[in-house]
Amino acid sequence: MTLETIGERELIREIAKIIGPCGKNTLVGIGDDAAVIRPSKKTQVITTDAFAEWIHFRTDHISHDQIGAKVIAATVSDCAAMGCAPKWVTVSIAAPEETAVEKILSLYHGMNRAAKSYGCEIVGGDTIRSMADLTLSLTAVGEPFGDEPVTRSGARVGDDLFVTGMLGGAMAGLLLLYKDPALSLEKNYRSSVMRYLEPEARVDASRRIVAHLPVTSMIDVSDGLSVELHHLARESGVGFHVELDAVPVLPSAIEVATDLGEPLDALIFQGGEEFELLFTVSPGWEDETIEAIRREAGVEITRIGIVAPAEEGVLLVGPDGDGRALSEEGFEHFGEGGAKED
Amino acid sequence: MTLETIGERELIREIAKIIGPCGKNTLVGIGDDAAVIRPSKKTQVITTDAFAEWIHFRTDHISHDQIGAKVIAATVSDCAAMGCAPKWVTVSIAAPEETAVEKILSLYHGMNRAAKSYGCEIVGGDTIRSMADLTLSLTAVGEPFGDEPVTRSGARVGDDLFVTGMLGGAMAGLLLLYKDPALSLEKNYRSSVMRYLEPEARVDASRRIVAHLPVTSMIDVSDGLSVELHHLARESGVGFHVELDAVPVLPSAIEVATDLGEPLDALIFQGGEEFELLFTVSPGWEDETIEAIRREAGVEITRIGIVAPAEEGVLLVGPDGDGRALSEEGFEHFGEGGAKED
Repeated sequence: MTLETIGERELIREIAKIIGPCGKNTLVGIGDDAAVIRPSKKTQVITTDAFAEWIHFRTDHISHDQIGAKVIAATVSDCAAMGCAPKWVTVSIAAPEETAVEKILSLYHGMNRAAKSYGCEIVGGDTIRSMADLTLSLTAVGEPFGDEPVTRSGARVGDDLFVTGMLGGAMAGLLLLYKDPALSLEKNYRSSVMRYLEPEARVDASRRIVAHLPVTSMIDVSDGLSVELHHLARESGVGFHVELDAVPVLPSAIEVATDLGEPLDALIFQGGEEFELLFTVSPGWEDETIEAIRREAGVEITRIGIVAPAEEGVLLVGPDGDGRALSEEGFEHFGEGGAKED
Repeated sequence: MTLETIGERELIREIAKIIGPCGKNTLVGIGDDAAVIRPSKKTQVITTDAFAEWIHFRTDHISHDQIGAKVIAATVSDCAAMGCAPKWVTVSIAAPEETAVEKILSLYHGMNRAAKSYGCEIVGGDTIRSMADLTLSLTAVGEPFGDEPVTRSGARVGDDLFVTGMLGGAMAGLLLLYKDPALSLEKNYRSSVMRYLEPEARVDASRRIVAHLPVTSMIDVSDGLSVELHHLARESGVGFHVELDAVPVLPSAIEVATDLGEPLDALIFQGGEEFELLFTVSPGWEDETIEAIRREAGVEITRIGIVAPAEEGVLLVGPDGDGRALSEEGFEHFGEGGAKED
């Protein structure tokens, strides 16, 4: 059975079976002109993410179920980055008419399982024919864990800079899959490959961070640490001193970098799709609080630097205490006119 | 300048210039991880529509500005069909990297102008590269004009059935453009072609219908009158008697049907993308109310039939009083085993 032969009504019926009944804050789910939802807070966030075959994923690298879970993770990660709980998600899928229906349903299985794991539900969508390639677009509506969302603009000089999780794995996994899918099966590399195939959004960590820390700004690392540091710096009107040795790196990513001869810096600072949270906290936080969040959310929380005045820019501070400017594209060394060395 | 050369940040800056400052119910617009909005009602609707080049439009038939306005109309039409005001819209665009930036900005000009005309605003989006073809996905969040949204399920036997506007034009315009774009320029056909190129969603009419009539169910005619009658019948557990002579038809669509030798029935009953509202009203409404809505909204409001028991199905009643079953695909004649005659 393909998208061409199943017909829209039957497809919607199959999708509705996967999604199951509406949650209590959804009055009308899939099937009417629009879903009817019941907001519980005074503010909401809305975010949209799009994903195209060959650009964002290749279906020979990742299963449709995994693609489904991953696009949900990417979308709800933007809610987490705003200190918000994702609540409702809509999904657009454009696929060639010869696409097997089971692949679309497999996408929905992955999306539905992931959505539920983050406490949200799929309430609507549209599945259309395209001429070629699979394109997905997801929109999430969320509500703040606290009174208001956490934006990118609240970082103040003297705040501490934190990141969740361990970086480098997503790009390491991607490199392995592109270089040689057989390599990606090696046990040593497994954790990096899984970071690429089955990343997790930090929704639960966001909830605990907002509840227990005086967080001043937050963003997710979807486009790589360098880019996100610059986003945060620009929106808050500040700079950063990032301690190179403090940045947490996934051990298997180090192995991948060594074995493939790739610069580890690129994996750590330019690797996108990490979905970790980068956030600033005003002084007064305590080690025990960080430790409790780490334990309860089951994810690393690492202080990697401090918020500096804007004129200092984004500096990467080495173990010797020397700072180098970190551009959006990666390192720039002082006195070298911006040329890259490594 | 193409999508490949402009870079994401510069593109977002150009789009933000087109969109302009946020409205009062939007706290954070384009630029953060998510937009922050402020709902004013206890319920909301959320709806998503997707559109693919070659399937839903051809860029040699319709300008990017018109595509932009049309996809907004299609998306907010689902809000109107729920008796809701569209308030916030997000937009995903997937386009090849060689796409001229001015085409994307032209899309945004059309979308922004249309969104504002319907009283809503674009608050976010994502523009990604695709391998080929333009794909759009829009999500609208709306709020009921009345206390609650109007669903497809409230029609009761004895209610009257109404439709806004005049049907047939959208498909007539499409046929002309596909047959011979030069033909589409002929003055006689102009109103049909414009119905295809620049359709309007009935947001203002929806507001007046909800405010002044005891409306029991509503849907928009996006997939054609036959299909939508069956949707409404199924969801409400009713049937319909539709009076063939009462169905309002755009005069230029009749000319197109005659001149091209196309069956007019197909244009009226199977033509999609009409974005007119099909709705049921419980007895007790008055002619003067209908007339006032017609005048103030500047759109036809026509009673085309009555809600019947479910077992009678969807019947098309001719001037002689005889009823024929109207299937989702169009006419079926009694005693002919479902074979079509015309």
